[in-house]
Amino acid sequence: MTTSPTVNDPAWSELAQRALACCADLAACTEVPGQITRTFLSAPMHGAHARLDVWAADLGLDTQVDAAGNWRATRRSPRPDARTLVIGSHLDTVPNAGAYDGVLGVVLGLSLLEALRATPLPYHVEVVGFSEEEGVRFGVPFIGSRALIGTADGLLQVTDAQGKTVAQAITDYGLDVGTLGDAQLSGDVLGYLELHIEQGPVLEAEARPLGLVEAIAGQSRLSLTFTGKANHAGTTPMRLRRDALTGASAFVLAAETLAQNTPGLVATVGSLIVLPGAGNVIPGEVQLTLDLRHAQDEVRREALARLLAQAGQIAEERGLSWTSELRMEELATPMNPALTALLEQALRAEGHSAAAVVSGAGHDAMLLGQVWPAAMLFLRSPGGLSHHPDEAVLLPDVEAALQVGTRFLRLLAEEAR
Amino acid sequence: MTTSPTVNDPAWSELAQRALACCADLAACTEVPGQITRTFLSAPMHGAHARLDVWAADLGLDTQVDAAGNWRATRRSPRPDARTLVIGSHLDTVPNAGAYDGVLGVVLGLSLLEALRATPLPYHVEVVGFSEEEGVRFGVPFIGSRALIGTADGLLQVTDAQGKTVAQAITDYGLDVGTLGDAQLSGDVLGYLELHIEQGPVLEAEARPLGLVEAIAGQSRLSLTFTGKANHAGTTPMRLRRDALTGASAFVLAAETLAQNTPGLVATVGSLIVLPGAGNVIPGEVQLTLDLRHAQDEVRREALARLLAQAGQIAEERGLSWTSELRMEELATPMNPALTALLEQALRAEGHSAAAVVSGAGHDAMLLGQVWPAAMLFLRSPGGLSHHPDEAVLLPDVEAALQVGTRFLRLLAEEAR
Repeated sequence: MTTSPTVNDPAWSELAQRALACCADLAACTEVPGQITRTFLSAPMHGAHARLDVWAADLGLDTQVDAAGNWRATRRSPRPDARTLVIGSHLDTVPNAGAYDGVLGVVLGLSLLEALRATPLPYHVEVVGFSEEEGVRFGVPFIGSRALIGTADGLLQVTDAQGKTVAQAITDYGLDVGTLGDAQLSGDVLGYLELHIEQGPVLEAEARPLGLVEAIAGQSRLSLTFTGKANHAGTTPMRLRRDALTGASAFVLAAETLAQNTPGLVATVGSLIVLPGAGNVIPGEVQLTLDLRHAQDEVRREALARLLAQAGQIAEERGLSWTSELRMEELATPMNPALTALLEQALRAEGHSAAAVVSGAGHDAMLLGQVWPAAMLFLRSPGGLSHHPDEAVLLPDVEAALQVGTRFLRLLAEEAR
Repeated sequence: MTTSPTVNDPAWSELAQRALACCADLAACTEVPGQITRTFLSAPMHGAHARLDVWAADLGLDTQVDAAGNWRATRRSPRPDARTLVIGSHLDTVPNAGAYDGVLGVVLGLSLLEALRATPLPYHVEVVGFSEEEGVRFGVPFIGSRALIGTADGLLQVTDAQGKTVAQAITDYGLDVGTLGDAQLSGDVLGYLELHIEQGPVLEAEARPLGLVEAIAGQSRLSLTFTGKANHAGTTPMRLRRDALTGASAFVLAAETLAQNTPGLVATVGSLIVLPGAGNVIPGEVQLTLDLRHAQDEVRREALARLLAQAGQIAEERGLSWTSELRMEELATPMNPALTALLEQALRAEGHSAAAVVSGAGHDAMLLGQVWPAAMLFLRSPGGLSHHPDEAVLLPDVEAALQVGTRFLRLLAEEAR
């Protein structure tokens, strides 16, 4: 007695169009007219929640906004022993964002329930629109998903640029900070599914609409300084120089070479500052950043050790001194093998490649994956573009994601039966 | 009937000490208390001129300040057909300077006339303290020496940071801008001798007190831009990157390698700016400067052509675009062979190496060398340091310079006889 669309059914296209229309509708909820800027607990977030409430009501879901500002819509299974599948992503944006980063995953959660409107499921489904993932307002990311797993309490006194605390922001939004503990998801959780745009160029380069995420990469961020001796560019012969920039350049290329020769590793020197920075003065100091990411922590750590050894060697050969400081380390989050195998089965069943991809960016699934089985499906990002007004997604890719997602929910229903 | 000191005569040491004391005395004439800062036609320049006047009067010299602010002291030869030897350097300083850059060469001009006080010379000697060499106040260097060779007129309307013109600065200092043409040196000029600290580390590295300058290097200054594509440091695999900084780094090392393999060439990337410059964003654009110098213009030009070809090759290999702009080119100024041979003879006669050095920095001799025979003698710079309060010179090196300079004046007297 399923009434959800079948493959090649024009209903998929309608469903996908409705999802994109909803993203466009949410894009109108912005702090900055003419842009999409919607940070954690900003006033326009009320509008986003109100728009989602309309669709959720139409689907007969119970909705609430928890004390961390997460929008939550629940479809309860009639089964007495039902566990809960969480489907979600985030509703906050970076400044001057596109319309799909995060938002699409929340909207597609509703689309999937629309597709399975008349299909009984042996598990509850909770669609979550996380309040905070980008870290824009308070400089700390994942506040929404932290609240869901019960680790947000320590953040209440963090302040934004105006000196307002998270606690005050919650109160100002009209929520009761005293009930933050209730935001933690209780009950027996079956797993977490997140659909998200890739925000990178891999799927487009491989002409694939969808990607099965096997892991979210771990990362190390460092700052390094090479110090030589500033000197006159005209009067100091090459053999008497201690040029911090030529040393730093050798390091930049060493990082690139190592990453090119280590499958899956990305290494980036994104910031490099030269002092004193005058055209006729040999650089005396260079400050640079290093960002290293890999799906396997031991590969990343070994690469880091090799690069630090190379930095030391470069400095020694060139008469420079150097320092390095580890500014941040995040461990890799592998997706849950069983849930990911089910998603792989859904991809194949719908005629897609199930070649695995690694997410180089962080997602809510990193946090939820720490406590529950998590799986992630990427949608191709045209031009690899994200965090930009031109961020896009293709209608056929959204259709494909809905087909695969629906299949996944059905397969999960069979397993949970 | 010479009364000038002979070698190892303690009188050389006294003379050198007097020169250094005079430099210290002039250092007290400053715009910024606690620093040495004395720019073109600033009020403290009056004090510098007054202090030099005392010594010049003691030597029986005629002194004047010309309309360009150059301090000029003349010792006239009794010979009716006498030509003029100009000895000089500059009296202005960079901000927060040392006590010797330029100043020492002016003071040593007086010291040489002191040493030869009782020795008749068959040529006039004009000691010049140039008013402007550093280019600090008006952003244009060599205003003093330009006036001496009659090419300063075009600069009268250039303005300083306060919007004041050179012409107004001349008037404010108490000089008559209408007589600027008279600053041009008239009569038959025998040559120009400049004594100057090296401002670099070569003589110290070779344990030599003095250096015979064979040429002032020509230079090319360029700005280059490499443009790739800014992208997410986590989601963009190495093979899909167009990283402007790794390309720029390859160029920095190419410039270093070429200079190391080309005798006498110096190549410096002194400024390098990375955009957008965030640790987690692949650099989309790098703007950098290139400073190339060599004593032979054809070597410098060939090196420049090779480096631009390499920039193009690097860009092509890496999918970058690039631009370059020549911002400045100055031709090399070879010193006069005959006058330099005489200075070499003086060095050897006083027991010094006469190995030639190239001046990587510009000097007044660049300008005067365009119209008259010029020769330059460098004094060792401890630590290679200049344009810094710790700039220094060694007393024995000053003694040596006075001995060599005196010998040079005697040899020139024999030739001119």
